[in-house]
Amino acid sequence: MKNSALSALGRRTAPPPISWLIKTALARPKLISLAAGFTDNATLPTEISRTLLNEMLRSPKTGQPALQYGTTAGENNLRQLTATHLQKLDGGHDRALSPDRVIITGGSQQLLYMTIEALCDEGDIVLVEDPTYFVFLGILQSRGIQARGVKLERDGIDLAHLEKVLERLKKSGELRHVKALYLVTYFQNPTGATSSLAKKSAALKLLKKFERDAGHPLYLLEDAAYRELSFGGDAAPPTALTLPGAKERVIYAGTYSKPFATGVRVGFGILPEPLYTAVLRIKGNHDFGTANLLQHLLARALATGLYDRHVAKVQKNYARKARVMRQAMAKHFPANVEIWKSGGGLYLWARLPKGISAGVKSKVFQTALKSNVLYVPGELCYADDLSRAKPDNELRISFGSASEENIRKGIARLGKVLRKFVR
Amino acid sequence: MKNSALSALGRRTAPPPISWLIKTALARPKLISLAAGFTDNATLPTEISRTLLNEMLRSPKTGQPALQYGTTAGENNLRQLTATHLQKLDGGHDRALSPDRVIITGGSQQLLYMTIEALCDEGDIVLVEDPTYFVFLGILQSRGIQARGVKLERDGIDLAHLEKVLERLKKSGELRHVKALYLVTYFQNPTGATSSLAKKSAALKLLKKFERDAGHPLYLLEDAAYRELSFGGDAAPPTALTLPGAKERVIYAGTYSKPFATGVRVGFGILPEPLYTAVLRIKGNHDFGTANLLQHLLARALATGLYDRHVAKVQKNYARKARVMRQAMAKHFPANVEIWKSGGGLYLWARLPKGISAGVKSKVFQTALKSNVLYVPGELCYADDLSRAKPDNELRISFGSASEENIRKGIARLGKVLRKFVR
Repeated sequence: MKNSALSALGRRTAPPPISWLIKTALARPKLISLAAGFTDNATLPTEISRTLLNEMLRSPKTGQPALQYGTTAGENNLRQLTATHLQKLDGGHDRALSPDRVIITGGSQQLLYMTIEALCDEGDIVLVEDPTYFVFLGILQSRGIQARGVKLERDGIDLAHLEKVLERLKKSGELRHVKALYLVTYFQNPTGATSSLAKKSAALKLLKKFERDAGHPLYLLEDAAYRELSFGGDAAPPTALTLPGAKERVIYAGTYSKPFATGVRVGFGILPEPLYTAVLRIKGNHDFGTANLLQHLLARALATGLYDRHVAKVQKNYARKARVMRQAMAKHFPANVEIWKSGGGLYLWARLPKGISAGVKSKVFQTALKSNVLYVPGELCYADDLSRAKPDNELRISFGSASEENIRKGIARLGKVLRKFVR
Repeated sequence: MKNSALSALGRRTAPPPISWLIKTALARPKLISLAAGFTDNATLPTEISRTLLNEMLRSPKTGQPALQYGTTAGENNLRQLTATHLQKLDGGHDRALSPDRVIITGGSQQLLYMTIEALCDEGDIVLVEDPTYFVFLGILQSRGIQARGVKLERDGIDLAHLEKVLERLKKSGELRHVKALYLVTYFQNPTGATSSLAKKSAALKLLKKFERDAGHPLYLLEDAAYRELSFGGDAAPPTALTLPGAKERVIYAGTYSKPFATGVRVGFGILPEPLYTAVLRIKGNHDFGTANLLQHLLARALATGLYDRHVAKVQKNYARKARVMRQAMAKHFPANVEIWKSGGGLYLWARLPKGISAGVKSKVFQTALKSNVLYVPGELCYADDLSRAKPDNELRISFGSASEENIRKGIARLGKVLRKFVR
């Protein structure tokens, strides 16, 4: 049998770009990985989870519903708590957010996947930041959807470039294939950049302006996965959900996994109609509802305030680890390596002088590997967009899972490598 | 904006056929629902889960990994335990099943979804039992895949009819679109029928025979979701995985959710290459791994033997409830209503004399609703296949979640309705 029976999607779907990085890490026990987006083991809420699960499972009245099927949209209590939680995060912005617009998902990743399923056909176009979250690029690649890169600045998307890209798509007749602009708006993966509300507002208006030529709504897909991993400095701006017209055009992807526990995969989405209904139906076929035990655990954590207390602790921890990493970089990295400022998240973004590659096949990466330190080559975070070359002189360096000692050691090793190739 | 931006899939995906049944049930507090496929609240393992989670989360060494991300394929220990568990279920059949072929999923539903994603393009064909699991039909509907019904007998698929359907597809030139035969092989949803190993073997051979004309492999997709919900009578036959050639052609979908706890959504799949790799990559985009807390809980339950002890208890409970339902049917149903025999699962299948409809719009269904008792009209379990009419004289009646008292009352009410329309 020469032919496989695989579908186009089955044949097309590529392995995740960092799966071999992870394999590499596992094969070298002495390697310090600053690559993976894992969270810090030491801050995982083992005690809180134990307490809450104990309380929940002690009584059949609360234990049985947690171990039973729920509904496809998610546990009503958690949907209500989620609406309230978002309103609180948005501070002064006193907008009523109905729990009816909330869907609970298996991490925000599942929400991203289903949203793209509901929105995009093969050949459609999604605008993304340059660089962006590479697993989102994986979803697009798998489904034969084109990604077009829009320049990213320290405070969000480059608006002039966004307009230029939209104009170009209009001229080429491709605008009718454009469905959404995907922005990772808080402490972005991979750069750590946070989008200002002004930029989100202007982007939303630009999309609106081009809708007539597109012939259909153009959505702003706001991925807020890192929102709650702030270092506690300046207050993060409110979500695009607070903007005028957001109810019709903003899709919000949030998660409890990263701030609470990545082993408790619960995310959520806020979606406008008709997308909400479409995604809900699609979820009916995926799994007809996220595991109830996880949803009940999070609802309890939120309701008791233990969630907030935990998140405050986690934030301090990452703020400290980021500081340790930054100090080590100041000490070991050549002065002309540019480090982006960041107020949260799990990564620092480093840019080498032009012409020096940090890509997968570069001497920098290979020498780093030989020196037992691993980072994510920044080029992996750029969409395949033939209208521009992929920069290859950047590094995503994570302080998420490594210990402070390993952060210091790892950065020292990496600094030694960089000093060899960067003058 | 007149046009929606939805994809073909987004526009096409229909609401689940029983979502309105569930809404109906919620709106009528006095209604006894014998419709939903929920499991029995009273037997959910609250104590076992509490004990195991306590042990796990007490120590950082075991607690932290459970609250951290894992790998896309699933926790290695659980994959190993799953391979061992399956070998045990298959008794004498001493085949080595490598854990490398196991993928852990969010219930078996997610495995079904991803398998169809990896196998089928729009317009492709999947052969299904007449009747079959309606959420599987939902996956096909959503993706524009055709389902073709094959007659189901008390011991599995009607082999002569399967051959006839394949011959017909060959003649019409459609065989190249056929990708798989989907069988719910143990205590089938909705009929309770169990497929004999002989029938699975013959079906696999038939598929093989038609492969040359199809031009690609034809897979047997074995959904064993109810396998462990046996009433403890005759031993259930081994899986099709034990058959010669299975390693290349059998896809197995299993689950721990139904036997252990439906709120702990952990299923698994065994797949041949290149499907295994394709599904693994697709899962990387869906969620890059099922929630680790649930996987660690199940691994503990399996390793300690508490899983097996719990399943034995659950089996006795459903056997008793099925007996209660069957006795009530004998007492209240007209004698010419045919009840299928079943050795496990959550449902009994009742067939009214020809010409009497039990369908959604029938007098029987509407009168039952007015009498505050709900069942699933059998017609919802038949694929849209224009080559035959959908039978509408059948009922799926669940004893899963109702109490024994409500089973008796509900069947008495339903019997009264049936006596009105069935002579």
